[in-house]
Amino acid sequence: MLAADVAVTMATVTEGTPAREAAKVLAGQDLPGLIVVDHRGRPLTVLAGVQVLRMALPSYCQEDPALARVIGEADATVILDGIGDRTVADLLPRERRELPAVSPKATLLEVAAVMARANVPLVAVVDADRVMTGAITLDSLLDHILGT
Amino acid sequence: MLAADVAVTMATVTEGTPAREAAKVLAGQDLPGLIVVDHRGRPLTVLAGVQVLRMALPSYCQEDPALARVIGEADATVILDGIGDRTVADLLPRERRELPAVSPKATLLEVAAVMARANVPLVAVVDADRVMTGAITLDSLLDHILGT
Repeated sequence: MLAADVAVTMATVTEGTPAREAAKVLAGQDLPGLIVVDHRGRPLTVLAGVQVLRMALPSYCQEDPALARVIGEADATVILDGIGDRTVADLLPRERRELPAVSPKATLLEVAAVMARANVPLVAVVDADRVMTGAITLDSLLDHILGT
Repeated sequence: MLAADVAVTMATVTEGTPAREAAKVLAGQDLPGLIVVDHRGRPLTVLAGVQVLRMALPSYCQEDPALARVIGEADATVILDGIGDRTVADLLPRERRELPAVSPKATLLEVAAVMARANVPLVAVVDADRVMTGAITLDSLLDHILGT
């Protein structure tokens, strides 16, 4: 079995996508992260879901979760308000890590290696022009390797 | 809405669980990680799924995914063979990070803050005796915060 057999299609975002929208795309699909692509559909960055949360959450909350407690339940929308009008590009980490991407013909062990190396539970599958054709999640990879 | 309203039950592992079994527990449930508990059911560590993959995959594969390619598809079981008879305790990272755990009465914003700080898409919910009563995933947290 090869990468192409395990890949699923997924919604992507671009650097120009409003960050609020990106958070909703992440929440709206049952996948463990987001893939940011350029205008030709070539992946630029693969973000784990928790990275998106970290981008969206005010840093004072992350430094001291007790502060988040006193803000109160009703203000959970502080997350979206905190994002404001910023775009994905505004919130991306400055240093880009190695892009976890594989060819449709990659073996599952190769996909596992790329995923482990990138430390993200999501890998993009790209064609010869580096255009994304699908994505492989850790869950589906394990299901296929372990036969669960 | 509070942590208790969003929490789900999930299978846990202990430090004595064979690592092969832990990988199967991870694959067998649709959750983004694993929670390691002690004999009283108190969480010790919350592992993101990709951390479990990193523990299971031989390091030569992670250092050079091209090597994984030449091993060939049929040997994807190299992952399970590589684990051998080791237990979860054998494979856990030596340095324990801050445990992402919240009380059932934590607000969703507090859960988000604890999750973001721990950089793991899974948080344990614990009672006053620190015994785990459930877990909250990033997906369910975002669904409730964003109303998706």
